[in-house]
Amino acid sequence: MNFRIEKDTMGEVQVPADRYWGAQTERSRNNFKIGSPASMPKAIIEGFAYLKKAAAYTNCELGVLSVDKRDYIGLVCDEILAGRHTEEFPLVIWQTGSGTQSNMNVNEVIANRSQVLKRLSITDDEPFIKANDDVNKSQSSNDTFPTAMHIAAYKVVVENTIPNIEKLKDTLEKKATKFQSVVKIGRTHLMDATPLTLGQEISGYVAQLDNGLKAVKNTLPHLSQIALGGTAVGTGLNTPKGYDVRVAEYISQFTGHPFVTAPNKFEALATHDAIVETHGALKQLAVSLNKIANDIRMLASGPRSGIGEILIPENEPGSSIMPGKVNPTQCEALTMVCAQVIGNDMAITVGGMQGQYELNVFKPMMAANFLQSAELLGDACHSFDIHCAQGIQPNHKRIEELVNNSLMLVTALNTKIGYYKSAEIAQTAHKNGTTLKEEAVRLGYVTPEEFDEWVKPEDMV
Amino acid sequence: MNFRIEKDTMGEVQVPADRYWGAQTERSRNNFKIGSPASMPKAIIEGFAYLKKAAAYTNCELGVLSVDKRDYIGLVCDEILAGRHTEEFPLVIWQTGSGTQSNMNVNEVIANRSQVLKRLSITDDEPFIKANDDVNKSQSSNDTFPTAMHIAAYKVVVENTIPNIEKLKDTLEKKATKFQSVVKIGRTHLMDATPLTLGQEISGYVAQLDNGLKAVKNTLPHLSQIALGGTAVGTGLNTPKGYDVRVAEYISQFTGHPFVTAPNKFEALATHDAIVETHGALKQLAVSLNKIANDIRMLASGPRSGIGEILIPENEPGSSIMPGKVNPTQCEALTMVCAQVIGNDMAITVGGMQGQYELNVFKPMMAANFLQSAELLGDACHSFDIHCAQGIQPNHKRIEELVNNSLMLVTALNTKIGYYKSAEIAQTAHKNGTTLKEEAVRLGYVTPEEFDEWVKPEDMV
Amino acid sequence: MNFRIEKDTMGEVQVPADRYWGAQTERSRNNFKIGSPASMPKAIIEGFAYLKKAAAYTNCELGVLSVDKRDYIGLVCDEILAGRHTEEFPLVIWQTGSGTQSNMNVNEVIANRSQVLKRLSITDDEPFIKANDDVNKSQSSNDTFPTAMHIAAYKVVVENTIPNIEKLKDTLEKKATKFQSVVKIGRTHLMDATPLTLGQEISGYVAQLDNGLKAVKNTLPHLSQIALGGTAVGTGLNTPKGYDVRVAEYISQFTGHPFVTAPNKFEALATHDAIVETHGALKQLAVSLNKIANDIRMLASGPRSGIGEILIPENEPGSSIMPGKVNPTQCEALTMVCAQVIGNDMAITVGGMQGQYELNVFKPMMAANFLQSAELLGDACHSFDIHCAQGIQPNHKRIEELVNNSLMLVTALNTKIGYYKSAEIAQTAHKNGTTLKEEAVRLGYVTPEEFDEWVKPEDMV
Amino acid sequence: MNFRIEKDTMGEVQVPADRYWGAQTERSRNNFKIGSPASMPKAIIEGFAYLKKAAAYTNCELGVLSVDKRDYIGLVCDEILAGRHTEEFPLVIWQTGSGTQSNMNVNEVIANRSQVLKRLSITDDEPFIKANDDVNKSQSSNDTFPTAMHIAAYKVVVENTIPNIEKLKDTLEKKATKFQSVVKIGRTHLMDATPLTLGQEISGYVAQLDNGLKAVKNTLPHLSQIALGGTAVGTGLNTPKGYDVRVAEYISQFTGHPFVTAPNKFEALATHDAIVETHGALKQLAVSLNKIANDIRMLASGPRSGIGEILIPENEPGSSIMPGKVNPTQCEALTMVCAQVIGNDMAITVGGMQGQYELNVFKPMMAANFLQSAELLGDACHSFDIHCAQGIQPNHKRIEELVNNSLMLVTALNTKIGYYKSAEIAQTAHKNGTTLKEEAVRLGYVTPEEFDEWVKPEDMV
Repeated sequence: MNFRIEKDTMGEVQVPADRYWGAQTERSRNNFKIGSPASMPKAIIEGFAYLKKAAAYTNCELGVLSVDKRDYIGLVCDEILAGRHTEEFPLVIWQTGSGTQSNMNVNEVIANRSQVLKRLSITDDEPFIKANDDVNKSQSSNDTFPTAMHIAAYKVVVENTIPNIEKLKDTLEKKATKFQSVVKIGRTHLMDATPLTLGQEISGYVAQLDNGLKAVKNTLPHLSQIALGGTAVGTGLNTPKGYDVRVAEYISQFTGHPFVTAPNKFEALATHDAIVETHGALKQLAVSLNKIANDIRMLASGPRSGIGEILIPENEPGSSIMPGKVNPTQCEALTMVCAQVIGNDMAITVGGMQGQYELNVFKPMMAANFLQSAELLGDACHSFDIHCAQGIQPNHKRIEELVNNSLMLVTALNTKIGYYKSAEIAQTAHKNGTTLKEEAVRLGYVTPEEFDEWVKPEDMV
Repeated sequence: MNFRIEKDTMGEVQVPADRYWGAQTERSRNNFKIGSPASMPKAIIEGFAYLKKAAAYTNCELGVLSVDKRDYIGLVCDEILAGRHTEEFPLVIWQTGSGTQSNMNVNEVIANRSQVLKRLSITDDEPFIKANDDVNKSQSSNDTFPTAMHIAAYKVVVENTIPNIEKLKDTLEKKATKFQSVVKIGRTHLMDATPLTLGQEISGYVAQLDNGLKAVKNTLPHLSQIALGGTAVGTGLNTPKGYDVRVAEYISQFTGHPFVTAPNKFEALATHDAIVETHGALKQLAVSLNKIANDIRMLASGPRSGIGEILIPENEPGSSIMPGKVNPTQCEALTMVCAQVIGNDMAITVGGMQGQYELNVFKPMMAANFLQSAELLGDACHSFDIHCAQGIQPNHKRIEELVNNSLMLVTALNTKIGYYKSAEIAQTAHKNGTTLKEEAVRLGYVTPEEFDEWVKPEDMV
Repeated sequence: MNFRIEKDTMGEVQVPADRYWGAQTERSRNNFKIGSPASMPKAIIEGFAYLKKAAAYTNCELGVLSVDKRDYIGLVCDEILAGRHTEEFPLVIWQTGSGTQSNMNVNEVIANRSQVLKRLSITDDEPFIKANDDVNKSQSSNDTFPTAMHIAAYKVVVENTIPNIEKLKDTLEKKATKFQSVVKIGRTHLMDATPLTLGQEISGYVAQLDNGLKAVKNTLPHLSQIALGGTAVGTGLNTPKGYDVRVAEYISQFTGHPFVTAPNKFEALATHDAIVETHGALKQLAVSLNKIANDIRMLASGPRSGIGEILIPENEPGSSIMPGKVNPTQCEALTMVCAQVIGNDMAITVGGMQGQYELNVFKPMMAANFLQSAELLGDACHSFDIHCAQGIQPNHKRIEELVNNSLMLVTALNTKIGYYKSAEIAQTAHKNGTTLKEEAVRLGYVTPEEFDEWVKPEDMV
Repeated sequence: MNFRIEKDTMGEVQVPADRYWGAQTERSRNNFKIGSPASMPKAIIEGFAYLKKAAAYTNCELGVLSVDKRDYIGLVCDEILAGRHTEEFPLVIWQTGSGTQSNMNVNEVIANRSQVLKRLSITDDEPFIKANDDVNKSQSSNDTFPTAMHIAAYKVVVENTIPNIEKLKDTLEKKATKFQSVVKIGRTHLMDATPLTLGQEISGYVAQLDNGLKAVKNTLPHLSQIALGGTAVGTGLNTPKGYDVRVAEYISQFTGHPFVTAPNKFEALATHDAIVETHGALKQLAVSLNKIANDIRMLASGPRSGIGEILIPENEPGSSIMPGKVNPTQCEALTMVCAQVIGNDMAITVGGMQGQYELNVFKPMMAANFLQSAELLGDACHSFDIHCAQGIQPNHKRIEELVNNSLMLVTALNTKIGYYKSAEIAQTAHKNGTTLKEEAVRLGYVTPEEFDEWVKPEDMV
């Protein structure tokens, strides 16, 4: 491999000749060989591209950067956003906890790429655009990395998680309406209980997702606050007046999302409570989705020895050894995602609680977990929606058989003959393997006519 | 011990003669000897007292309960709320997951106590007020227990957690204002960084609590929704028309808090997402408070070999072996509470995700963890406020010494001479153990006058 | 209330006249009003009683404490262990993180009670036995509290958790043997699969508990190491030579458990990895027990609309509204305990990871969570054993009906006619609602005789 | 793109013409677009390659597979292990929870690649080697996937995690020895305490890692048990006699690790308690490493306003805005890894607790989290070792300054003049900003000569 010599404030470093990155990126590559290479999420690099461009425009507007430099920086950022330089970001999550090295990676790539675009040499001693003095102007890793985190986090939540969960919710809502009159047995403690309709049962899932979506949306104002302008410790040292507000406006403009400057920059650097907050809501959704997906696989279980009240799409052979087996695989993928999100919440919590003084140094880890959760939830709900939820159908025969056979229909008699006599009827029928009606009449508590009038599953829902 | 014979639908049970509870409570006592006796939180029993009274009033108003019965039920509920029957609730958290046995415990106590108040005998075959048919009228454990949970949870959050955290926030806000001009060194990565003021540092804590309080308040509408009226599976079987809305109004009236009937009762029985949601916000506060308390103990560390920038109250001797030692004990109590809340969040998550069909059977466990978290956070913040935060004072001598000595003041030169020359100055001073000014001048990058004009800690904040 | 004046190195304090505790206990009571009073676990106080007595004996033996003082200290410790002074320990978990105040509480009570036993006055200026200089001799909170933790933790694990889980395992083992020939349908992905016997299914639970018990026992050597002798920071300052080894021997003798002095006292004070380690194994057991209990309630679900393959004891009425309902309440109590243990593991993890320098200051919180987990697991397994597991019976009729009806018996044909043809048979039978045999023969892949010979559930297990 | 038609028991599927995978892989690709493509860990695919080869050899030896087929299967497995077919495994973690689709992916690739190696066509109707009937012979996804998990998990723990942590432990052990006489101040509650040596402090870290390594090793016997031979539900249906023991021997031979057949196959399919168990020990190591890394960054903090007792290597510029700043970046990477491992433990716990009946369907998620943790811990400890721990040096000047200045040296006087007088000396010196000796003499409690003789830091360690 060919190398060129790059230097930083610590001295010289050999860098692959065909790469735009510089000394600090290369140091990080060598010093942090932890896990898979290039694990820093792409969405974070894109977040940086948005903010570097926004910073350049703001710096220019406020008179501390030339138009020429602004335009070259903006141009490279646009290239990055267009996906043209993915191989230029080789760093891992497990680097410095401030993400300084990824910030410098972006700074170096923008500076060197600008040099090339301007038909100058990367190895010039006095480059046209300098990584620290120009690209990073009015910035610090300590405010850029959290800004990139918030941009990336906000985008994935709003562009993937929320819309995909909303679509799943819409599907379930349609099912709830469609099945609103399908009377089935209820189950509490896994035991037979009084009836409800399949639509009512599904409406509970809809309500769960509704609440979860509200919970996520409640957190967005905090997540939309960006640290940029705080620089090293939150004071905004070395930024021109008005910079923080203006740069947030540019970021809003470039991303199309309503970012604002954080009202307190000290909080925005030293803590990632906004990440903790929004991910807490994602965890709540994982809790809800786990319940929903588990219910659906229990309801669809069988085909002959399970509950079997609903049918779900048969998407693929389910077993390499048992011929003809079909499994609730979408439920499984979704519940695995839920477990992951719950685990990620703990990683984020443990990182979030350990800020010290002016900085939290668990930034890349927190960002990576957040982005994974939000993407997985969105993708898995989309997959679950189109490959499972949309295809849910009642197994009417089975549903009717079970509800009509139920001993818990006796509850309808409570208000007529009291809880104790009702219990006696149910217990006797259970013991004798008979029907409620037989025992109710035999015990002399009701006439056959009364029984038929009072005990109607369809009136109990 | 003397016993009387009580019976339920399963047969006869011996019950201590001097207790109001009945057969089902006694069965539970015997079948669930798990952990400390009577661990079911008192706040849950009180929640039941509110809702039993409200149910009686609603049932009466809707024509299914006599005024006489309503009044006796209400009377006993008031006695329970006045703390008169604490010894009548011997059951544990670790019982049936629907809390049925605690619901029956309350039903039995109210029924038997009513009997006594009416000067009848507890052992009457046909009591004046029946536990199931009267006290539990229009109710099921499945809707009463979650209602008691929400009443108890809402009350402790609104009456203890929030006000105590607000008071702590106010104290810190006053400190932030008072110390807004105390320039001190900043620290990022635990390493010396550019300066900020002590007031700015503390303002970050204020912002954290502010965000956390907002997050908690965002969850209150969900928590204010009560399940009552859903009865066994959410359909509201055996309730009179209008019951659910009216009973929520009575509960609001009796508690003074704005409870409403849950718009979807299926969600309210089968899930406890509202508990998951609010506790998620409590967990966020724990994350924030851990950072704040840990910072404060680091800032106060010493007295001679630590950071020592602030002084906190010396409340008690700190060591049984080291004479004269004083420790940041309030920080320790608070951070232990934070760890507990984070653990409780996991217990609640694990319970919340495992609802099955029409019921979640982790109710008492989830309730107990929630109530502990909310109470501990409130109490610990109050304790931390009055015994620590209010007494925080800057150690001006130490603060000035450290800030003036800092190499990171060199950052002020970035915009004058560039990042690289500034780095050279700092590195040389570090290596030589000299001051920035000495090296800056010696290296010929600035004049002494320029240095003094450009590098002023008080201008860097 | 009457008070007397006590003093410590910080000055005078009013203490209730009728209590043995002194100034430092009283300060802690006043400074830490967090959560329920007297929440410090009783088992910790007992751990202290064992170690204070052991320290007195060792100090005496090594010539730094008189026989007379040793005997009085020992006498009071025995009284504490006999449960005579429970009201003398009013402090809470949420105090200083080293537990110094509970150590002093014990020191003060022992000193003052000795004074009384010796017919001297508590208010003497120069007491016969001094809390710090005599009772706490050769000790620090920093080594006594972790010693009390290990004593308490070891005892509950060995005396409650392990034996109760072993008994449950024995019960399940007997069931596995008894039901070893009860052929039933298997279920994977909740879907019908090839058969196995009920005994085989239960044998999996036995293997889980076996592994879990081994895991717990693997951790006991670490847990048996005690910090005593490390004093303030682990160096053993102010202890006579040979003290640490000897005091561990006395503790072993008094408790009947094989405690040893920790080979590295710095680890033993600054970390609680042993607590983390053993609780990790308890968490594993919680994971296993959750699976077992959930399986059992699914297998027992019904009575008419569930799986219904086993019958479990009907211990109490299950519903306040649905007459005759019986629920798997022991499964619910046990799974709630599992969720709690998983949550407690997180609290312990969060505490355990935050030691700083020579001390971890999350001691009381970690201890309380550990002790709760170990006790709950032991108690809940005992309750589950006697009230549920011992009564498990197969529902033979239902089991046979389901296994004979299963489409997955087709797997037996794989090795005869291949996976693809077998799949075709199963799919056709599923579609047509027919039997495997009908379709197998109709498709011409096997003769009726071959089918009967090859497809025998009892040969497939 | 060109396609060919493949079919499975559900019908035809279009598959990319240039890929070896078949219908079921393609179905999974289309049905599970969740997260990054091809996220199924490479180590799992390699685990499959080992076991497929072992199964082929065992099947051949036991007379159910021809030598020719065995050799082709073995050949392709060797190619996979040599890294030749990485692009043939496009599936994601978030598929069916049994990993059936990845099992079939491997089966299909081996079958089709064999076809090519044998110079036959992939599109033959009757291929030489069939994915289900030959490659998967005597297997099910339900026993192969857990076997692949255990192979992969065992390998990474034994080949990466353990040796790298051992190397770090060795480095720290050397430091502990080297610095065994460097007397420094101790700190408890972050406050100045009695002295110890730097070597003693570091020896605590060594003890932590020692205990953690023992804990991991204790779990290996369970992890070395493999499910293979259990097939669909644990009964071993469709396997030749002796298969399970023999196939484990082949796997041991091929991997060089001591795998054995699981004594209870029902446990091995329905639970992943072995994964929970070993990962619990990894989590314990994360707890320990977090403490160690955090201590080291606190001890190295400064350079002028922190603790500054040790020096760690300066590996890279630490700030994009603060010139000359150097940060404890290896500590940060390591503590981020610790947080991740703690989060992963929760994901694994949540997956592990949810097995149902004969199968746990959280397999791929659990595997992925386990493998990430083990790899990250190994890699991060290696990085931390060579880039940080090996370079730790005492800052002797600072260490001496702090220890000599300490008020807690007064503890040495406890056994001479008692705790109370000692406390008075320390408090007075603290208040007056004087030395212990000055105040001790002035208060008349000791002579200067006594003080010098009794209070020697080097005698206190």
